[in-house]
Amino acid sequence: MKSAKEVVETDLDYICDNLGAELSAMAGKELLIVGGAGFLGYYLVQSVLHANRIGRARPPVQVTVYDNYSRGMPSWLSDLSSDTNLTLVRHDITDPLPHHIRDFDYIVHGGSIASPTYYRQYPIETMDANVNGVRTLLEYARRQGDRGKPLDGFLFFSSSEIYGDPTPDDIPTPETYRGSVSCTGPRACYDESKRYGETLCVNFARQHGVPAKTARPFNNIGPGLKISDRRVLPDFARDVLAGRDIVMLSDGGPRRTFCYVADAVIGYYKILVRGHVGEAYNIGVESPEISVAELADRVARLARELFGYRG
Amino acid sequence: MKSAKEVVETDLDYICDNLGAELSAMAGKELLIVGGAGFLGYYLVQSVLHANRIGRARPPVQVTVYDNYSRGMPSWLSDLSSDTNLTLVRHDITDPLPHHIRDFDYIVHGGSIASPTYYRQYPIETMDANVNGVRTLLEYARRQGDRGKPLDGFLFFSSSEIYGDPTPDDIPTPETYRGSVSCTGPRACYDESKRYGETLCVNFARQHGVPAKTARPFNNIGPGLKISDRRVLPDFARDVLAGRDIVMLSDGGPRRTFCYVADAVIGYYKILVRGHVGEAYNIGVESPEISVAELADRVARLARELFGYRG
Repeated sequence: MKSAKEVVETDLDYICDNLGAELSAMAGKELLIVGGAGFLGYYLVQSVLHANRIGRARPPVQVTVYDNYSRGMPSWLSDLSSDTNLTLVRHDITDPLPHHIRDFDYIVHGGSIASPTYYRQYPIETMDANVNGVRTLLEYARRQGDRGKPLDGFLFFSSSEIYGDPTPDDIPTPETYRGSVSCTGPRACYDESKRYGETLCVNFARQHGVPAKTARPFNNIGPGLKISDRRVLPDFARDVLAGRDIVMLSDGGPRRTFCYVADAVIGYYKILVRGHVGEAYNIGVESPEISVAELADRVARLARELFGYRG
Repeated sequence: MKSAKEVVETDLDYICDNLGAELSAMAGKELLIVGGAGFLGYYLVQSVLHANRIGRARPPVQVTVYDNYSRGMPSWLSDLSSDTNLTLVRHDITDPLPHHIRDFDYIVHGGSIASPTYYRQYPIETMDANVNGVRTLLEYARRQGDRGKPLDGFLFFSSSEIYGDPTPDDIPTPETYRGSVSCTGPRACYDESKRYGETLCVNFARQHGVPAKTARPFNNIGPGLKISDRRVLPDFARDVLAGRDIVMLSDGGPRRTFCYVADAVIGYYKILVRGHVGEAYNIGVESPEISVAELADRVARLARELFGYRG
C-alpha cells in the first residue's frame, strides 16, 4: 500500500504530465492563488511548485498565496515556506489589497468557505469573500491592464451549487442550464454569491477586457480535504477512524458524482490558461453516480479491508 | 380632461387615503429614500410630503433624498427643495456614506438603473448601485442598531426580473418561484444584482436583526416615468408625441401586466412599515395581461381621440 506522501507525489506527477502546454505558458510568470491554504489550494499550489522542481516549468513559476488562514496555516504549506518560488502572505481577501502588491500574470480566486456547515454559520463572511473578494481582484486586474500590463488569465472558483436543484432532465447539467436556486433560502449566501461572482467576471471581461474565466466544481474529493470539514466523505472518514458506526444525515438516497481532485486541478489550470474569456466550465465527472448509502457502504468495506474497522 | 398636475394631486390623495396606519407609524420619523430622484422616487417622495401637508402625518415625516442625479435633478424635485421637511443630498450610493449622516428610522433603497437599454450600457455601475449600495446601507443600519437606535424598517427594491423567464405554469409567479435566470447573460448585471441584493437583505436580517424587506415590482407605469427611459410605454409615447408611427422592437407577442405606480407605492410603504422582516413581496397586478401589440394599439387609439394623432 502506498503511503499518503507517495499518493500525493504520484498525483503531482500525474497533474504535471497532463499540463504540458499550460506549464510552459506559466513558466517564469507570476501566479497569485487566493485561498491557497484551502482544499483546492493543496494541489493547486503543490502541483506548480512540483513542476518547478522537476523542470516542467522553466524558468520556474513564481507562486504567491494569499490566505487569511482562518483555520490555521496547514502543515503542508508551512513545510513549503522555504521554497524560494513561493511567497506566503497572510491576507484576508475581504480587506483592501496590500499596498505594495506585485504585478501578476495569473490570478486564481479560491478563497471562500465551501462547507455548508460553515457557510451557514458565517453567511455574510462567505458572501464577502466571494463577492467583495472577486470584485477587488477584478478591479486590480483591470487597473493592471490600464497600466499596460494585462493579465494572461484570471480564474474564479464558482460552484456546481449555482445550479441549485436541477430537474432530473437536467442531470448531468450542461453549462447552459440556468439553475433552480432560491435567492433567499439558507443556502443562498453561498449559491447566490457564486452566481453573482460569475456575473461580475463576465461583465469585467466584456467591459474591461479582464481575462476572467469561471470553474464550476462538482464535489471534488481527495488529499487536502480536511477531516473536520463537515462534508460527507470527511464525516464518514472521521466515523471510521473513531471506530464508530457511520452516521448518515439523510436516508442515504441522494445521488452524487465525485471527482478526484487531481483530475479537477488539471481542469482548473486548463481553464486558467486556455479557457475562453468570459466563459464558465463545469469540472466534474458524469458517472458513476453513487448514493450516499452506497458511499457509506464502500467506505466501511474499504476500512474493514485496510485496518479491520468493525463499525 | 384633467391636467397632469391634477392627476398627480388625485393620486397623492389616493395614496395617502390608503396608507393611514403607515403614515401614522412614520409620523415624526426620519425617512431616507436613496434614488429618490428616479421614477419610483417621484411618488415615494411626493406622497409623504403630501401627507405632511394635508395633516396625515403629524408630526411631519422628515424625508432625506440621496441621489447622484445622473440624469439631472428633475424639476418636480427642485420645485420641492424649499419644503422644510425635505433634505436633498447629492450622493452616489456606490461611494462611502457621507461622514455626518443622521440616524434614520426608515431606509428605502431604490437607487439603480432600471431600464434595460441603460443597464446594458452601464452594467458594472448597475451592479454596484444595487449590491454595493444595499451592502453599505445594511451595514449602516446594523451599526445604528448596535448603537441602540435600531431602524423601524428597511426596504430594498428588487425586481420581478429576479424570476427571469418563468414557464407558463409559473405565471402569475408566486414569491416562492426560484427563477430561471442566466447568471452570465446580457441581463445578468441587473437580474443577478437584484437577486444578490435580496440575499444580502435576508442575511443581514437573520444575522444582525436589520428589519430588511424586499419589494419585487412588476412593470410599474405612470407619472414620473421619463419619456427618454427606453421602456416600452415611454417609447410608444415618444413616437406618438413626435407624430410618427409606433415602432415595436418585437413582433408584439410578449404579454405583460402593468401596475399603476400609485397603487404600487401604496404597496411599497405597506412593506416598509408592516412587511415581515426578511420577506420578499411581489408588487404588481395579475390581470389584465396585455400584449405589446395590443398596448401599441391602445396607445395609438387614445392618442387619436385625445389629440388627433395620425400615426
